[in-house]
Amino acid sequence: MEARQAFLVKCLSTGLMLSDSIGYLLLQLELEMVVMNWLSKLLQLPRSFSFSNDGDGGGVLLGTTCEAIICTLLAAKEKMLDKIGRTNTEKLVVYCSDQTHVGLEKAAKIVGIKPENVRKVLTTKSTNFKLTPESLNDVIKRDVESGLIQIYLCATVGTTSTTTVDPLAPLCELSSKYNMGVHVDATYAGSACICPEFRHFLDGVEGASSFSFNAHKWLLTNLACCCLWVKDKSALTIPLSTNSEYLTNKATESGQVVDYKDWQIALTRRFQALKLWMVLRSNGVTGLRAFIRNHVKMAKNFEGQVTMDSRFEIVVPRYFYVVCFRVSPCSINEHHGKNYEANEFNHKLLESINATGLVYMTHSVVGGVYFIRFSVGATLTEDRHIQLAWELVQGKATSLLGTQTPKTASYSDNPKEET
Amino acid sequence: MEARQAFLVKCLSTGLMLSDSIGYLLLQLELEMVVMNWLSKLLQLPRSFSFSNDGDGGGVLLGTTCEAIICTLLAAKEKMLDKIGRTNTEKLVVYCSDQTHVGLEKAAKIVGIKPENVRKVLTTKSTNFKLTPESLNDVIKRDVESGLIQIYLCATVGTTSTTTVDPLAPLCELSSKYNMGVHVDATYAGSACICPEFRHFLDGVEGASSFSFNAHKWLLTNLACCCLWVKDKSALTIPLSTNSEYLTNKATESGQVVDYKDWQIALTRRFQALKLWMVLRSNGVTGLRAFIRNHVKMAKNFEGQVTMDSRFEIVVPRYFYVVCFRVSPCSINEHHGKNYEANEFNHKLLESINATGLVYMTHSVVGGVYFIRFSVGATLTEDRHIQLAWELVQGKATSLLGTQTPKTASYSDNPKEET
Repeated sequence: MEARQAFLVKCLSTGLMLSDSIGYLLLQLELEMVVMNWLSKLLQLPRSFSFSNDGDGGGVLLGTTCEAIICTLLAAKEKMLDKIGRTNTEKLVVYCSDQTHVGLEKAAKIVGIKPENVRKVLTTKSTNFKLTPESLNDVIKRDVESGLIQIYLCATVGTTSTTTVDPLAPLCELSSKYNMGVHVDATYAGSACICPEFRHFLDGVEGASSFSFNAHKWLLTNLACCCLWVKDKSALTIPLSTNSEYLTNKATESGQVVDYKDWQIALTRRFQALKLWMVLRSNGVTGLRAFIRNHVKMAKNFEGQVTMDSRFEIVVPRYFYVVCFRVSPCSINEHHGKNYEANEFNHKLLESINATGLVYMTHSVVGGVYFIRFSVGATLTEDRHIQLAWELVQGKATSLLGTQTPKTASYSDNPKEET
Repeated sequence: MEARQAFLVKCLSTGLMLSDSIGYLLLQLELEMVVMNWLSKLLQLPRSFSFSNDGDGGGVLLGTTCEAIICTLLAAKEKMLDKIGRTNTEKLVVYCSDQTHVGLEKAAKIVGIKPENVRKVLTTKSTNFKLTPESLNDVIKRDVESGLIQIYLCATVGTTSTTTVDPLAPLCELSSKYNMGVHVDATYAGSACICPEFRHFLDGVEGASSFSFNAHKWLLTNLACCCLWVKDKSALTIPLSTNSEYLTNKATESGQVVDYKDWQIALTRRFQALKLWMVLRSNGVTGLRAFIRNHVKMAKNFEGQVTMDSRFEIVVPRYFYVVCFRVSPCSINEHHGKNYEANEFNHKLLESINATGLVYMTHSVVGGVYFIRFSVGATLTEDRHIQLAWELVQGKATSLLGTQTPKTASYSDNPKEET
């Protein structure tokens, strides 16, 4: 979001707040419902997630994914405890993969699920670190035999380390066999799914209980703006609702309005819908799709450069705008006489790249492999930055390996046009 | 906070974010620590709440009080479970008064404390709805006899309904006898305590474990900005810390920096410190105190008008900028032949006042008494608005009672100068 837009939003919301407290709250409420239904359509979410006259679904704007997970996990926990008795908290089990964001563990601790009852199912390189229904089923079966009760699976569309995508359809199908709810955490990659060519990553979401993504990650919106949709809003509002004389008002008492304070942790709410409305109205669907596609194109170009330089390797396939790469162990052995172990070498490479202050890249480790994450996602990134970054990476690798940078077609000579 | 300031903060923080991700994070961290120590000094909080070389205290900026209560309650819960065994959650009891904000009940539900183990100790008119140590002790004693374990007391400085202030010193003293931590929730009235003449409301805070107030309530800061200080930061960070390869960095690994992600619910953080820094620097201590005093003076003037009109009564003494008043049952009986019960009458009065669209007042009920809350706190309120509001209240009461507005010295004739 540009500063100009942010300023307008600030003025609008401040002005509206001053002008009419209660009218403002109703405007905020209505705009949020409208914007969440718009976004839901844009993502082609099933109708069961939207506000409608004949359904129990709906969307809400929260701060962060942690909050979305706490709310949906609490809903799942309370629903199950209502059924099996409130002294059975110890038996509740939550599932995810070893690639799921640590926010889930934190949320489990907060809502009182035992840390040892958070099952981080192992993923492997052979499936590009996706959570497979087979491995999940093995873990669940053992838990069922031990008398434990399944309440929640967190599946990810765009994991933090490698941006891999869990297969939603078979995971939801499996979970339904165990009467377990599924939350789809698309924090990072959800935004991409507004483009028809990426929408397939959400195939199967209709089997989930809830879905969230962060508009502040990759949809031109300022922090913090997490979009959460649920199929059954009462599961959320039953544990989160509060009442007090000083909170009563005619609108809420009528039962005709959505009381968003009961959809979230806090009671106070910021006017998030206004900034999302501004983003949608000022960029339009075409503009937002072009923005996403441009980032993916630039990441694809960077990936192309990496694959053309035989010293490097792509560690996990690129799906969106993050390229996971490293200098391959072969090159290190060949040129460096085994002075360095591959992980240590790539760690040094990353440090020397970042020390220039010209670019900033991050790292992660999957399956014991240390790698560098090149991420395009900033609003102002252009082709020339990608070119600069790649030349920098090549140069630093060359000086660390003590070799010459191989002569390949450079990025600028041959801009790859595939999309 | 003015829109102009908000715009500057937005530009600054966006610019800084683009310029250097990691440096930005360290700047954010350092500024937050500095600003929290400044504010702590301004509030004359005990040194044990501040960052120092020889202490375990410190402050953090969160979104809302709900979040502050969840974090401190979770800390208390986990600390006790570590001591008595993790299967004893059912035995944990939390204390507050019937005037404590509902956010505590919500927080208890979220962290898995049984709703029936949240003791809302009754308060009465005779003590102006303060929580007394005697009544708290009676309730605790019964719980001790039942084998329940005391973990948390929430005391309030400026309750939501009447802005009353719980006596911190004796409550903290009592709690320490039961080894129970005390959180002081000064959401609303904490800001006033930057003025020496209001600081006595915090007397005894040195006996508490944590203290929070919302700068967005009454310190010229935009939503959402809850300031929390704790004496023992590790109690907070032990249950809230997370680790993952993608979160590691040199600064954190050195152990030399505060890792604020482990002080809060979410992992993502907004640059709250910048806006608070801007508020402190641009208004100064003198400016902020003048701002607070002006609101209190205006509320005091409104209160004076109410007491001069014999048809009205002040329901609970005014402490800050909220005046709790109603038309007295006597006046209603006298003029209205018992057509209306007092609560119903005052409800109608409030509705007719708000229906004008010129002012907006709220209501609450304490000890069965329905009353109107006149609140001065908006940034742009001036003496003339108070005058208009009071004339409106008088006029509406007159037409509902069918009497004449009594001739008293009007607000504009005789501006009360007491402070």
